[in-house]
Parts: sequence; C-alpha cells; structure tokens
Amino acid sequence: MIKAVVLLSGGLDSAVTLYLAKARGFKCYCLTFDYGQRHKIELQFARRVAASIGASFKIIKMSLPWQGSSLLDKSLRLPASRHREDGGIPSTYVPGRNIIFLSFALSYAETIGAQAIFIGAHAQDYSGYPDCRPEFFRAFAVVAAKGTKSGVESGPVKIVTPLLGKTKAGIIRTGVSLGVPFGLTRSCYAATKKPCGSCDSCYYRIKGFKEAGIEDPAFKL
Amino acid sequence: MIKAVVLLSGGLDSAVTLYLAKARGFKCYCLTFDYGQRHKIELQFARRVAASIGASFKIIKMSLPWQGSSLLDKSLRLPASRHREDGGIPSTYVPGRNIIFLSFALSYAETIGAQAIFIGAHAQDYSGYPDCRPEFFRAFAVVAAKGTKSGVESGPVKIVTPLLGKTKAGIIRTGVSLGVPFGLTRSCYAATKKPCGSCDSCYYRIKGFKEAGIEDPAFKL
Repeated sequence: MIKAVVLLSGGLDSAVTLYLAKARGFKCYCLTFDYGQRHKIELQFARRVAASIGASFKIIKMSLPWQGSSLLDKSLRLPASRHREDGGIPSTYVPGRNIIFLSFALSYAETIGAQAIFIGAHAQDYSGYPDCRPEFFRAFAVVAAKGTKSGVESGPVKIVTPLLGKTKAGIIRTGVSLGVPFGLTRSCYAATKKPCGSCDSCYYRIKGFKEAGIEDPAFKL
Repeated sequence: MIKAVVLLSGGLDSAVTLYLAKARGFKCYCLTFDYGQRHKIELQFARRVAASIGASFKIIKMSLPWQGSSLLDKSLRLPASRHREDGGIPSTYVPGRNIIFLSFALSYAETIGAQAIFIGAHAQDYSGYPDCRPEFFRAFAVVAAKGTKSGVESGPVKIVTPLLGKTKAGIIRTGVSLGVPFGLTRSCYAATKKPCGSCDSCYYRIKGFKEAGIEDPAFKL
C-alpha cells in the first residue's frame, strides 16, 4: 500500500487534507508538532482527527527557544482579524515554521518509505504567510529531490498541496463530501476552551462556513 | 555588527567554519543539535569550540522517533571505513538531517536578524551524503528566499558553505592559519572517550592531517 505523511495541526484544513489523502488510496502517517505554541490544545484535536480515520499519529516535540511570534509568546497580543485588513505578514508568523515541519515530514517519509507528504496550506486565505505560497512549495520539492537519499536513488518524495487553489468555503464543502468530522477540529489561535471567535483563524473559519452555507459544529458545542 | 548563525557539530569542519565566519567579521550564533545521536559527546566539544572564540551557543533538543540510521540506532553496527570504498550512501546517513538543521538555523537567523548561515559541509569528502552536495545547498537557498518573511521583505538569509570546494587537508591548513584549537574538536562517530580511529569520520580526519603534514592534537591526548 502506498504511504503518505500528513501534516496535521488539529485545524480543519489539515483534517480535510488527511481525508483527501486517504480517499486517494494512501496509508496515512500523521505528524503533529509540539513547538511551544500557545494553542497547545490543538494537539488533542489532531489526535482525535487521526483516530477518526484510523491513521497512525505521532507528535514531534521540539524546543524553539526563540521568540518573536505572537503565536509563541504569550506576552504579545494576538492580532484581532480586523488588524489584518491592511495586508502584510501578521505577527502570528512563526519564522521558518512550515520549512521545519516539512523537513521533519521529509525525514519521516524517507524513513518509512512514503511517496508523498500532504500539507493543507492554501493560497487564497493564507494570511500572508510566505511559507504557504506555491513558489515556496515548489522550492521545497527541489530540496526533497536534491537533498535526500530517496531523491537521489529512486524518486523524490512528492510535496502534495491539495488545497492550494481552494477557498475556505471550497475546503469546507470538500470536507463535507468526505465526511470530515469538523466538530473534532479546532482552528482557533487562543488557548481557550471554546474558540475565541475573533482571532485571524476564527475569522476565516466563520467566514468560510457562512459562505459554504453550512453550520460549524465547533461553534455549536 | 552583522550576524551569522553557524551550525556547529563538535567536529573539525564546523570549527573551521566558525573561525572563518568570525574572520569575515560576523558576530556568530552557534546552533548544535541533540537529536539522539550515539556520539552525543560531540555536544560538549561543540560548546568548548564556541566558548574558545566567545560565540553565542545554543543546543536544540528534538525527538527524532524514527530509526534507520546507524548514527542513531545503537543496535546497528557503525560501518568501518573500508566498507565505504565501494561508494554509495553509507548507513550513517540520517534522513533529512541537514535539511532539518538548516531549517532551524533559518528560523533562528530570521528571529535574530542574521544575514547568513554558515555550514561546514564539503563535497570532496562528503561521504556520500546527498544533503552535503552543492545542488542541495542551492535548492535550500531558494527555500530561504521564497519561504520566509526576510526573503520576501528584505533579502533572503544567505547559505554560506565556505568549505565546499576544499579537501580535508585544505580545511585543516585553513584551520591552522586561523588558530582553530583542533584539540577541542571531535570527529568520531563512536561514543567512546577517545576517538575510535576506525569509523568513516576518523578515517577522513586521520587521512587529512597526514596529507596536511600536521599532527592531530585529538589523537595525542
């Protein structure tokens, strides 16, 4: 059976990505990161999403001993969604985060002989993160081809970004068609018990469900 | 003062790289990794090398919960140098290691506003590791340009590989001219108190000092 490493965050995008990978016939190995994020609660959601589909699940714990992101540093305020309207890269940006995540995924993929890495980034709602752009994923694919044993000896691990062209509403509709249990996902940056409803991530989620004409079970609970 | 992140392993190549970065006028921030390597003793050597030049020093601890490399898995035998004569990628290869290391270095560089990352890889003696080849570093430089805030907003962090064209003997001669304290470095893959003298890494070190016509203080102790 062909294998894929799936980067899982606990949010809805990566959950839809996991269900898509499974629907495409891959045996899925989920990877989640404990990197000091303030919304560490997402790890529990990621575990439940992986379990919902019977996928393997692993947490990588790492020290990121530098600050500078409001997603790591609790002394900084999370930006409210309205602060983003002027564009630019928001303070929740974590330097090199997707590069680090993909590097671990690549190492894992090579170790278990997986052919692909699935990552649920999307360009339209990408919140200004440079490491969510198509040109970044193209560049990383070259790294996978040139910097690994599999890339040199057989064929490189593929970097698959199935949501890249989709809107949030489109992702939600795809998830509904695949039976993604959205009630098990958590997109909020705040570490509160219920989603805060006002951070960047909540803002896009609420907007997406509204546009898709679907009720979000996460806000019903 | 311009800053550089320097990847330090405790071995002689990275020590020479650190002294080169300092000689080029950079304020150096060393990064070393505790990733479950069998020769964890190298961390102490790295710390001493950084201290010898008054550089900042940080250890990143991470879980790499997969096996498959004789450098991580103590149940596997380290290859003796003669086993390598047939070419190919040796069993000490750790999937994606330099990709992971460079990713952390890039994240760190962005956080502290460093302009460069120095890494002491070299092609001639690279022991068959795909993530030590020039084409890999070129690919990673594109990732730094496309996948980071600094790459998008100002200029990308440069990936500097000052040893890439040098032989081991050439690296040692450069180190001597810069006053690198080779007695503080450790290149051996075995975790023994003294260098084993027979692993891949010892083999190239002994050969290099011999060709340079210099006595290795590490073997004198």
